[in-house]
Amino acid sequence: MSFKFSDRLNSMSGTATREILKLTANPEIISFAGGLPATECLPVKEIEEITQEVLSGTKASNVLQYGITQGMFTLRELCTDYVKSFSINNAHPEEILIVSGGQQALDLACRVFLNKGDTILVEAPTYLAFLQIAAAYEINIIGVNSISDGLDTDDLEEKIIKYSPKLIYLVPTFSNPTGKTYPLGKRKKIAEITKKYNVIVLEDDPYSKLRFEGEEVPSIKSVGGDNIIFITSFSKIISPGLRIGLVCANAEIIRKMEICKQSADVHTSHLSQAIVKEFLSRNLIKNQIQKVRPIYKAKKEYMEQAMTKYMPKEFDFTHVEGGMFVWGEFDAPVDTQKLFPKAIEKKVAYVYGNVFYPDDSSHNTLRLNFSNATKEKIDQGIRALGELYQNEINKIKK
Amino acid sequence: MSFKFSDRLNSMSGTATREILKLTANPEIISFAGGLPATECLPVKEIEEITQEVLSGTKASNVLQYGITQGMFTLRELCTDYVKSFSINNAHPEEILIVSGGQQALDLACRVFLNKGDTILVEAPTYLAFLQIAAAYEINIIGVNSISDGLDTDDLEEKIIKYSPKLIYLVPTFSNPTGKTYPLGKRKKIAEITKKYNVIVLEDDPYSKLRFEGEEVPSIKSVGGDNIIFITSFSKIISPGLRIGLVCANAEIIRKMEICKQSADVHTSHLSQAIVKEFLSRNLIKNQIQKVRPIYKAKKEYMEQAMTKYMPKEFDFTHVEGGMFVWGEFDAPVDTQKLFPKAIEKKVAYVYGNVFYPDDSSHNTLRLNFSNATKEKIDQGIRALGELYQNEINKIKK
Repeated sequence: MSFKFSDRLNSMSGTATREILKLTANPEIISFAGGLPATECLPVKEIEEITQEVLSGTKASNVLQYGITQGMFTLRELCTDYVKSFSINNAHPEEILIVSGGQQALDLACRVFLNKGDTILVEAPTYLAFLQIAAAYEINIIGVNSISDGLDTDDLEEKIIKYSPKLIYLVPTFSNPTGKTYPLGKRKKIAEITKKYNVIVLEDDPYSKLRFEGEEVPSIKSVGGDNIIFITSFSKIISPGLRIGLVCANAEIIRKMEICKQSADVHTSHLSQAIVKEFLSRNLIKNQIQKVRPIYKAKKEYMEQAMTKYMPKEFDFTHVEGGMFVWGEFDAPVDTQKLFPKAIEKKVAYVYGNVFYPDDSSHNTLRLNFSNATKEKIDQGIRALGELYQNEINKIKK
Repeated sequence: MSFKFSDRLNSMSGTATREILKLTANPEIISFAGGLPATECLPVKEIEEITQEVLSGTKASNVLQYGITQGMFTLRELCTDYVKSFSINNAHPEEILIVSGGQQALDLACRVFLNKGDTILVEAPTYLAFLQIAAAYEINIIGVNSISDGLDTDDLEEKIIKYSPKLIYLVPTFSNPTGKTYPLGKRKKIAEITKKYNVIVLEDDPYSKLRFEGEEVPSIKSVGGDNIIFITSFSKIISPGLRIGLVCANAEIIRKMEICKQSADVHTSHLSQAIVKEFLSRNLIKNQIQKVRPIYKAKKEYMEQAMTKYMPKEFDFTHVEGGMFVWGEFDAPVDTQKLFPKAIEKKVAYVYGNVFYPDDSSHNTLRLNFSNATKEKIDQGIRALGELYQNEINKIKK
């Protein structure tokens, strides 16, 4: 029989990452495509110990029973403390929602604010999965220019005036895909402009604890008003497999997101919540962050060295102070999407940059993940890509 | 500042259960309102042992890393075997989707099939949370009559012809809220009618393993075509806190649901998946079902005895062979919603029946959960309700 699927699927099917990630499930492929934390950094032993205690204690059956949609109260309390490390002071547990990974928060925020036909803004380029989430709401997505230090706030204000968007989505710290971090002045400016025009800001910050150089910058939420929804995740620091993220926002927004979450999955895995709760209450997260940073720094340096050594001189990349990604760009018409199958033949994967743009532009760019591969694989993979791109440039020049 | 929320929230906010469940969080209240499994049945020890092994093994870091959206392959393989116990033979792992509890499957199915303005059918009364999930898609929900043995198939066919619905939602085994189970003949008839008119069936079956009397009945999926989407959950048998459910459907439908799930939460908690996988592969589920059944049977009997003893003669209830709920009805204009605050004063909670009807009808009905309270609380709570309702009937008769 043939099925009549909903209209929203027309804009969702056959996405690039799905195809790329399928290819990279092949263990022979060196993948710079995903956003996986370094497997060697996962705190297996700590989680094993915590879990054993959580499940052998007197409250073990609570953890296996239904919980409330907003999330365990004790975890939300600890999160009000955790967000202080993003300069968000004085958050109340009613302003916290525990979500099944940061991704769910993005989807819930779209549910809560977007009607079909609405317009939203994103920095261009932006997190690919957000483009996919938003597309399901059958809306218009407009890109705001990205300059060397992040979002172009002049372009932001122009586009707010022109399009009256409901919300703007930003990854202001170690942006996915570019790795850029907005300076404090820009954050204040964004807070000011969006408050003036009453535009909701989704501030997505999964990466800022992965800082290995430079100074921390306060979140936009910490310098902004009630229109800022702050989202972070424990996936990149503790474990993505547990699926725990959090939202910190005005209590009225949290209540609406909670209503939508109740429909979506009732509540987030109670066992995962209990594990993260213990991880925070024992302050293991501090050690974990200390452990991860030098490893990520080293991996980024391997990648920079390899790119400098093997990539054509027409290639330039962002110099990042943290996170998981660098962003590459050719000063030549090298079409990274067209060349992708050839890279796969050479057993190397990346994400071609155009998929991060709402208008599918900038075909001469790519995103490279440095957190998951070993030093040897980084060297080997970048060398193969360098050869591929050099050949292409040689052909173009002929 | 004031927030401009999406239109879909207009039909979602301030739902009855949310308010009821908040009240019943008070430990002084005897709650027959929720749908919680008996806490004493939760397999704490087994899960503790499994989890320790899962996290100390050589593959521990896999469990804490990102996984694929459709769910662990080994778990999906085991699920193709598990659904045989619902008479679904020959399912392929590509026809299985692991979800974050059965609730997520309902939401994803709505996403995949429903456009704003579409019409769907439900048995009236039906699972309250499904009414809430569906309402978020801004659709029309029409009730199909319920008769003594479940859905009225004549009314079903008439309403399919009249409304051309996209889908019908059913809980054919130990229905929530009535506890009714459709006989095999009715299941075949539903499969035949819905195939003829090309209507999707969401067959929601979280309860059928909780059978303590009578014979198992094959699922509608097992006697139907590709238009049947079968959904079950491990929440009622293993643990609701883990949030693991499964969908078994045509592979094309599964692919579309998977695309929507990727946007919703990337994948279900990997640790929860690993625990359920071990629970199935060690065949602990068989023992667990054997353990649970007599406990639920006894609780149902306590409730029946208490209702017979304390409830007015104008009260009648469904006699169920399994599940978690009985459904009560007054042959008198007793408004159970109006009386609810008085029940709370007496420290007893239930769910008034009208909220299970898409048209808010049948105010003389109520749903009672028997799985979570102790024998003493059941006796005490039903006695209090009996007095309350007898008083009301006495007033009406004056």
